[in-house]
Amino acid sequence: MKTLAEAFEHTLQDIYYAEMALTKALPKVAAAAGNAKLKQAVEHHLTETKEQVKILDKVFKSINKQPKGEKCDAIEGLIKEADGLMEEASGKALDAALLGAAQAVEHYEIARYGTLREWAKVLGHDEAHDLLGQILDMEKAANATLTGLAVTVVNEAASKKAA
Amino acid sequence: MKTLAEAFEHTLQDIYYAEMALTKALPKVAAAAGNAKLKQAVEHHLTETKEQVKILDKVFKSINKQPKGEKCDAIEGLIKEADGLMEEASGKALDAALLGAAQAVEHYEIARYGTLREWAKVLGHDEAHDLLGQILDMEKAANATLTGLAVTVVNEAASKKAA
Repeated sequence: MKTLAEAFEHTLQDIYYAEMALTKALPKVAAAAGNAKLKQAVEHHLTETKEQVKILDKVFKSINKQPKGEKCDAIEGLIKEADGLMEEASGKALDAALLGAAQAVEHYEIARYGTLREWAKVLGHDEAHDLLGQILDMEKAANATLTGLAVTVVNEAASKKAA
Repeated sequence: MKTLAEAFEHTLQDIYYAEMALTKALPKVAAAAGNAKLKQAVEHHLTETKEQVKILDKVFKSINKQPKGEKCDAIEGLIKEADGLMEEASGKALDAALLGAAQAVEHYEIARYGTLREWAKVLGHDEAHDLLGQILDMEKAANATLTGLAVTVVNEAASKKAA
């Protein structure tokens, strides 16, 4: 990996792998969530994630490359963290902790799509730039939803503690 | 982990482990960076990270707990990703990719400190809330520095490609 174009392709393969991994991980998170709104938000984000994989297919196509995933250590770690929570936590604490883990994933994706979009612009990949911007906006909106939900869930968790 | 208080303590131990891991990982990243400003930014963030560990010590103390790290899978994955880049990439592409990886780490930390600060507030840990807010502001500032730097480094990488 010596050129920015190679770094772009590599990072695109990384995030493609990450989104595919999330399509497998999110149903487990939705099933584990106790709070109905959290469950609903995770299910909605699963639908969005599948849509994002299709948009990434278009990004690969726009630079004349075959869609391909490359093992992404960061998402593996983030998913492992959520798996650990589902083993170790329960009740309202699990909901609060899963929400935190989901926000960490969103922030990871926001960072990666922000970088990829910037690189696409510099490389003159206009269509890829626009498509990556679409996904970035979706991730930012998803994170905003989770932030709003966090206040409710965390307060429920705290009142459960006090009960 | 059944209560929000337990989730708070667990996540605090996670981020403590993460910051300690970064104090070991950042010198390698600074050494690998080719761009002088990137190297300087990473070295500066190493100093900040050591300071953040001390602030976290105070957070633990404020809730009458001993500072302790708990293996954080997410940061392990994020650091493994950066290690992979240092093996696979070179030149300007390495600088651009390292910057992207550093921003992913910052975003991870912003997510975690945002969650921890919110939980501290709900749990009535006022001192912890303020201390975590201090670290959150430092991480946001560090991310803003990296974002500004990314534009320069990426354009250099692109012009290197064109040369």
